[in-house]
Amino acid sequence: MSDIQELIAIIIKFRDARNWKQFHNPKDTALSLVLEATELMEHFQWKNEKEIADYVKKHKKVIGEELSDVLYWVLLISHDLGIDIKKAFKKKMEISNKKYPIKKAKGSHKKYNEL
Amino acid sequence: MSDIQELIAIIIKFRDARNWKQFHNPKDTALSLVLEATELMEHFQWKNEKEIADYVKKHKKVIGEELSDVLYWVLLISHDLGIDIKKAFKKKMEISNKKYPIKKAKGSHKKYNEL
Amino acid sequence: MSDIQELIAIIIKFRDARNWKQFHNPKDTALSLVLEATELMEHFQWKNEKEIADYVKKHKKVIGEELSDVLYWVLLISHDLGIDIKKAFKKKMEISNKKYPIKKAKGSHKKYNEL
Amino acid sequence: MSDIQELIAIIIKFRDARNWKQFHNPKDTALSLVLEATELMEHFQWKNEKEIADYVKKHKKVIGEELSDVLYWVLLISHDLGIDIKKAFKKKMEISNKKYPIKKAKGSHKKYNEL
Repeated sequence: MSDIQELIAIIIKFRDARNWKQFHNPKDTALSLVLEATELMEHFQWKNEKEIADYVKKHKKVIGEELSDVLYWVLLISHDLGIDIKKAFKKKMEISNKKYPIKKAKGSHKKYNEL
Repeated sequence: MSDIQELIAIIIKFRDARNWKQFHNPKDTALSLVLEATELMEHFQWKNEKEIADYVKKHKKVIGEELSDVLYWVLLISHDLGIDIKKAFKKKMEISNKKYPIKKAKGSHKKYNEL
Repeated sequence: MSDIQELIAIIIKFRDARNWKQFHNPKDTALSLVLEATELMEHFQWKNEKEIADYVKKHKKVIGEELSDVLYWVLLISHDLGIDIKKAFKKKMEISNKKYPIKKAKGSHKKYNEL
Repeated sequence: MSDIQELIAIIIKFRDARNWKQFHNPKDTALSLVLEATELMEHFQWKNEKEIADYVKKHKKVIGEELSDVLYWVLLISHDLGIDIKKAFKKKMEISNKKYPIKKAKGSHKKYNEL
């Protein structure tokens, strides 16, 4: 079993033991994904670069928890919608490779449609 | 190499070929994570249950791309901050197991502090 | 003094008494706006239509507070960037009127580019 | 008529001419509010302080439009839920005044529970 399959198995076991599948429609799970992503972002609010560097050093555990909460929803949604996330990810990276050709994109933070 | 490590290797190769590490501070990467999560959510906006079921069937590819975009930032941020996301995830699930005891949480969508 | 000017005056007095202008750059204030908007959304997470109707009746006060938090940032950002929000709003509604012609948009939840 | 009432009247006229009230449940309107807030935030992504200052000067019009989109949902949701947003706002500012006493909060970007 791969890593990703292992984590998905943990999620589904956790979810099904609580009989929560009934709540997991696409709209509410996507909404949950957004909420967890904003919880990570909140850690960096108002802080300047130096403050963030200090903060990150001292709060690795909680930041790892926030990232895990986001990953939870990515994997659960993929699973429920029948999406092989590893395969989808590799395909998406091929698209990104074409959208952002190295020659044009190198050192630039512009969006692909502005390159 | 595990599959999470494999995906991280793809990300870092893609990023470094474009010399983008210079932009990847915690605040802007977390902001990007939020933006990608909202792009997924937008697919389900205004649609009722039946419309979503139909939509999901016909748009699996693009939904897989949106989920991949979120996963990209989860893995990149974890990597850059020195967080072993697989390990962090398993620890977080142990915490969630305690926060949501099966007896109390079964069949309920309440938050742990309201159970 | 108009309503909106009155509310902006309250915000600026509150902010300046705390010497917080130093933190109010566009990136962090926009990030705050997003966080407050997600706090409102969280109230409706997992709830079905009936549960939401019940919830709204009993939680008008706190929902009003969340909406106020969002309005706070809309008005503060407008003020700080020298944008007359009332004027901008009216102009935007003219654009929306053209983007969503009544004949095409009536009864449809499609985006303007799909009408 | 106050200017907030004037803007709400514009919104309701626009909405009702399109027969869109049927879609405006609390969950989807809050979701829309979040999406519009993130559209504003996206303008500042990846940019450093100097780049943002330049950008803001040249893009006041579009930033005003994004802020208007957020305001649209704040006012529409308030209206639909029977919340007097001006009154709610003033009450919320009284709460904030107590949560962030000037003596403690002056010059600090800490949250009230960390002051």
